[in-house]
Amino acid sequence: MKPSVNRQFRLAARPVGLPKTSDWSLAEEAIPEPGDGEFLIRIEYVSLDPAMRGWMNEGKSYVPPVGIGEVMRAYSAGEVVASNNDRFPVGSRAAGVFGVQQYALSDGKGARLVDTALAPLPTYLSVLGMTGMTAYFGLLDVGAAKQGDTVVVSGAAGAVGTVVGQVAKIKGCRVVGIAGGADKCRYLVEELGFDAAIDYKHEDVRLALRQHCPKGIDVYFDNVGGEILDAALAQLAMHARVVICGAISQYNAIEGVTGPANYLSLLVNRARMQGMVVFDYASRYGEAAQEMANWLADGRLKSREHIVEGFENFPDALLKLFRGENTGKLLLKIS
Amino acid sequence: MKPSVNRQFRLAARPVGLPKTSDWSLAEEAIPEPGDGEFLIRIEYVSLDPAMRGWMNEGKSYVPPVGIGEVMRAYSAGEVVASNNDRFPVGSRAAGVFGVQQYALSDGKGARLVDTALAPLPTYLSVLGMTGMTAYFGLLDVGAAKQGDTVVVSGAAGAVGTVVGQVAKIKGCRVVGIAGGADKCRYLVEELGFDAAIDYKHEDVRLALRQHCPKGIDVYFDNVGGEILDAALAQLAMHARVVICGAISQYNAIEGVTGPANYLSLLVNRARMQGMVVFDYASRYGEAAQEMANWLADGRLKSREHIVEGFENFPDALLKLFRGENTGKLLLKIS
Repeated sequence: MKPSVNRQFRLAARPVGLPKTSDWSLAEEAIPEPGDGEFLIRIEYVSLDPAMRGWMNEGKSYVPPVGIGEVMRAYSAGEVVASNNDRFPVGSRAAGVFGVQQYALSDGKGARLVDTALAPLPTYLSVLGMTGMTAYFGLLDVGAAKQGDTVVVSGAAGAVGTVVGQVAKIKGCRVVGIAGGADKCRYLVEELGFDAAIDYKHEDVRLALRQHCPKGIDVYFDNVGGEILDAALAQLAMHARVVICGAISQYNAIEGVTGPANYLSLLVNRARMQGMVVFDYASRYGEAAQEMANWLADGRLKSREHIVEGFENFPDALLKLFRGENTGKLLLKIS
Repeated sequence: MKPSVNRQFRLAARPVGLPKTSDWSLAEEAIPEPGDGEFLIRIEYVSLDPAMRGWMNEGKSYVPPVGIGEVMRAYSAGEVVASNNDRFPVGSRAAGVFGVQQYALSDGKGARLVDTALAPLPTYLSVLGMTGMTAYFGLLDVGAAKQGDTVVVSGAAGAVGTVVGQVAKIKGCRVVGIAGGADKCRYLVEELGFDAAIDYKHEDVRLALRQHCPKGIDVYFDNVGGEILDAALAQLAMHARVVICGAISQYNAIEGVTGPANYLSLLVNRARMQGMVVFDYASRYGEAAQEMANWLADGRLKSREHIVEGFENFPDALLKLFRGENTGKLLLKIS
């Protein structure tokens, strides 16, 4: 029997610090019917990303904030169940910015068909989705990583970090990951082939970087900000590239962001620090996805997903990112 | 009668905060005789630069620190008075890293002949010296400033800032300077042709930047760090370039450097922040000096020097930089 109700998480209030239960409202509406050129998708997986915390804040950023009362923005993927759009026929699978809800209408803008014969659906939200694109272009384009470089990545056991490290290894770099906890560090070295991993919860990151990167860091890919960014800046090689992809340690800061006190290392080392937003590479997603799909197929690249089940668990599942509880790509499975 | 004593300022102690009188010792030694391949220069002008404060600190930087008991490092210029070096004959003028002293021996390494028929001696320590080279390559190479860009420079009335702004105008940019006090601001706009100037001592820099740069800042050339760097980061245009040339507000900070809290603007705006050290451009000084000399000759570029007289006034003269008392290039005239 086809359900008739669409459940949705809507933003109820702008969070101060970590999002609380009361910052969300769980709404229900009738499942809509697709209009001309539209299709209806039954969402199976919702991507949970640190960037979502930024979308909940007011103010100018690289995308407009989610409005109060609006369905929370999210990448998600599922099955087309009704369609007036020839590109997205019933029974096909698609991924796009469909939001945190069980069903979504789309006119196809920003959505893409995915082939679950080539890779499982979750992979299209991780290595073959925005996560993978972010890692690929951040490392190779903004970071200009090349064979022989020493690459350090923070949030190394997270969705983007695991891909950054693996791609850097494939490209012939020496790779050091920074992650929280012995299990994650063991996973990075033993399962993903990182050259070394630093457990920031139990090691002095600055000393450990000095030990693991005696010639300095050529590319530092930052997902976390804060003290770890400062520790990396203190160990830059000449002409280093610092990729600012995210700053998860700062997203819930109530007192305001802490800037990198060691930024003058950029001067001493003639280094650059550059921000990136993956959307800028949209015209080149195809080339990256093709290369990554080949690496997945021949086993050189692993896609690791951390899947939480149950639509109603969204608010708590999202917090796992900020508690550092996920290894690999965090997804919510909702049907 | 030729004097027989060489007076020198030597570093007596590593300063904590602003250099104190007791951090210096005024030494005297016999004027040395040049050995094989050497020449003796009688120094006429000593360049006073914010970077000198960094050279007084212990620890790794882009040049080794001045040792305790050593003559303070400085660019200076004067007349060759004795010579066993054919390239630097008696009576010629030269500039180089000769230190804070009345006489210096040199084997010619890092020194260059200057032609006082083409430009007065002080100009070779300002627009035609490291100051000018720093402005030229920082703006055009690191900052990649091009016609139509909005360029903002801090420390705008200082040695490097006055050149940055003028070169940016020559290259067809819109130029906004940030300086301390109404007199400096008036000078920038009325004498040097800046489009606008912001008096950071009496204006809200962030609001003023929003007003003067409504489309955002394409190139921000930073000489100061601190709150002004943060204000500029808040107003970056997409794909902006932030040139980190110096951080005079931080050089005497006892509590440690304050990092730019707004650094995530680099992410939002896909902008880059890059450090520079002028020495890296040594092979291209000639081309820059030629172009700058032409601009000086046809009056499009002005070299402004702020000259303090008297060798013994060195310790206090240096502090003028940190008190913001100089307009243009600060020089000590010592003979």
